[in-house]
Amino acid sequence: MSSLVRLVEYAEASPEVRAVYDKIMTARGTDWINNFWKALANDPALLGRVWASVQQVMAPGALDPLTKEMVYLAVSATNNCEYCSYSHTAAARRKGMTDAMLMELMAVVGLANENNRLANGLRIPVDEQFKAQP
Amino acid sequence: MSSLVRLVEYAEASPEVRAVYDKIMTARGTDWINNFWKALANDPALLGRVWASVQQVMAPGALDPLTKEMVYLAVSATNNCEYCSYSHTAAARRKGMTDAMLMELMAVVGLANENNRLANGLRIPVDEQFKAQP
Amino acid sequence: MSSLVRLVEYAEASPEVRAVYDKIMTARGTDWINNFWKALANDPALLGRVWASVQQVMAPGALDPLTKEMVYLAVSATNNCEYCSYSHTAAARRKGMTDAMLMELMAVVGLANENNRLANGLRIPVDEQFKAQP
Amino acid sequence: MSSLVRLVEYAEASPEVRAVYDKIMTARGTDWINNFWKALANDPALLGRVWASVQQVMAPGALDPLTKEMVYLAVSATNNCEYCSYSHTAAARRKGMTDAMLMELMAVVGLANENNRLANGLRIPVDEQFKAQP
Amino acid sequence: MSSLVRLVEYAEASPEVRAVYDKIMTARGTDWINNFWKALANDPALLGRVWASVQQVMAPGALDPLTKEMVYLAVSATNNCEYCSYSHTAAARRKGMTDAMLMELMAVVGLANENNRLANGLRIPVDEQFKAQP
Amino acid sequence: MSSLVRLVEYAEASPEVRAVYDKIMTARGTDWINNFWKALANDPALLGRVWASVQQVMAPGALDPLTKEMVYLAVSATNNCEYCSYSHTAAARRKGMTDAMLMELMAVVGLANENNRLANGLRIPVDEQFKAQP
Repeated sequence: MSSLVRLVEYAEASPEVRAVYDKIMTARGTDWINNFWKALANDPALLGRVWASVQQVMAPGALDPLTKEMVYLAVSATNNCEYCSYSHTAAARRKGMTDAMLMELMAVVGLANENNRLANGLRIPVDEQFKAQP
Repeated sequence: MSSLVRLVEYAEASPEVRAVYDKIMTARGTDWINNFWKALANDPALLGRVWASVQQVMAPGALDPLTKEMVYLAVSATNNCEYCSYSHTAAARRKGMTDAMLMELMAVVGLANENNRLANGLRIPVDEQFKAQP
Repeated sequence: MSSLVRLVEYAEASPEVRAVYDKIMTARGTDWINNFWKALANDPALLGRVWASVQQVMAPGALDPLTKEMVYLAVSATNNCEYCSYSHTAAARRKGMTDAMLMELMAVVGLANENNRLANGLRIPVDEQFKAQP
Repeated sequence: MSSLVRLVEYAEASPEVRAVYDKIMTARGTDWINNFWKALANDPALLGRVWASVQQVMAPGALDPLTKEMVYLAVSATNNCEYCSYSHTAAARRKGMTDAMLMELMAVVGLANENNRLANGLRIPVDEQFKAQP
Repeated sequence: MSSLVRLVEYAEASPEVRAVYDKIMTARGTDWINNFWKALANDPALLGRVWASVQQVMAPGALDPLTKEMVYLAVSATNNCEYCSYSHTAAARRKGMTDAMLMELMAVVGLANENNRLANGLRIPVDEQFKAQP
Repeated sequence: MSSLVRLVEYAEASPEVRAVYDKIMTARGTDWINNFWKALANDPALLGRVWASVQQVMAPGALDPLTKEMVYLAVSATNNCEYCSYSHTAAARRKGMTDAMLMELMAVVGLANENNRLANGLRIPVDEQFKAQP
């Protein structure tokens, strides 16, 4: 399948887009740009904003980068995003995720999706004990 | 709002249901049962199966229990499960999740949901480099 | 919570809207209109079209009406539609759904949601044997 | 991948199906039928109803047809419908959507999906000022 | 596309995995294992649990097996699970689902998805008459 | 229901948070902050990033601000975000959305959700004519 927009290659990119591409390759220590960014490059402001968001959100903080990648994968599996599942499984593996960790991650994702529907489908009221947050 | 099925209280529960309720309270060190299980108790086989699944899936393994709770929360936020968000935020806090960790978790959940739609909506093809898994 | 649009009561409704309201009450043997239709009545063409669709789709055919109501409930649980869960559980009960049937229905809905994510999250390829349809 | 049902070609279609196919080609000024309708044609009543719904809903009214196509695309991206993304991007382009408009549309879709999860995941209560609608 | 984890073939499987594979082939009267189970086999505990869940949940009970398969399909269509749509359409056909039944099933799934959004999008309050359950 | 995190009021906010609150009130010409921002303020970096994203994405460009608000509403209805439906319906009305426009918007959202599931559930292949994009 082809993308619904042109994929902007480095050679044809504007200086504004090239500047972001350069940052991506430097941050990742790679010499290629993956298709996600080539598609966003059709809107340089979107490209710049999303890249900056990824840098801010996925950086180490109260959670470590591997945990963040696995949370990202959990969401991508729930939403059925093929592209994100491939790209962020690769990213999580680079950060140390083993197959055993991936399988346990998916087991939790599956269980949560099951129990979400039992709770929503039966309209189970929230216990008073849980409302006392935060 | 009331549940779409009766909530089965301990006093009126069958021995089969009480046996699961006892296991839940023992495992958690509490003296009450939350509504999720009281609703499932209308189908004792379902109650027993889901409790056993939770015990198996959420146990420490390749991932630690707090990471699993946060993955569960990420799915529940994506699916908009109010009950699960309340109950598993409480569970994650008991296991050590701080407000700073919760906020970063939601930042990742939000970003993944955003990027999932950019990738899906533009039908961005998966790069060959990512397909070389596992 | 209040609706985001006015709920159109019979007394204030246009003749076009009243004509649909009359059909709804006749078809159901009731003397009241539920809020779903009162909200749609802000767009009489939408009201008429959706009511006609419900009449066509939910009528007995290759599937019986109770099975159709349970399928409707399965979708509403998956999408977390509170209104639809309440109204179609009531409808399904009027057509003979017992609590045991509702619980088994939700068990299937939960399991399907779980397995959907295992299949999507791990990007499991479809077996050749299954592709030979129809 | 093949469809889960046979695609009904014009040459083999019943008069009832051909009548709808003729309407589709006339309305669109084309000489071919796309697969969506060929699949629905296995149930002529469904085919007729959905085509009539599309004609009614997507017609100019309080919103113009291009805005409607873009709303349709926003939903299809959120739900990850590949077929609908391809077919309705083509339709929106025929009605004047440029690449710049498509990119901005997806930026809004992405942002809304992000913020939806922040609001749902943190269970943020609706402000009283917003409840005063309509 | 390849799976994100290795597909575990019978010849290379551990005794624990083979034991489950044998149960699956016996229960189904087949001599092959579909990819879903080969992927789960990377986590033998997950494989065993999910297979046991499927056996329990999909067994005849208050609902018959064909109705359960169709409910499963309704969920898979709503969640856009390609794998599950193929495998469970095949399963439902083996249990007697005709093309006419499949088309009516999808008509209900489509209608429920439409009406779920009308109810959710307009925030239509639940009628008091529906709250009087159970 | 209470939020899962504290709502940060202006009086108790840090200078960093107050600076964003001031920008929000200035941009909107209001003297109050809605709960969405008060919840995000528990993570000042998240608050700042999301506010900046909203300013960038929702600004006039290839699409006008009202169209953008309606697209936002379409996504929020599809995802069942109560908070976002209330807040962005209010925003869209301030920008000129009438009840007739809201009803037509929801009609398109409903139809797209229906057709998304017909296409996904039946696994209808994309026509070659649609693949020739862009």
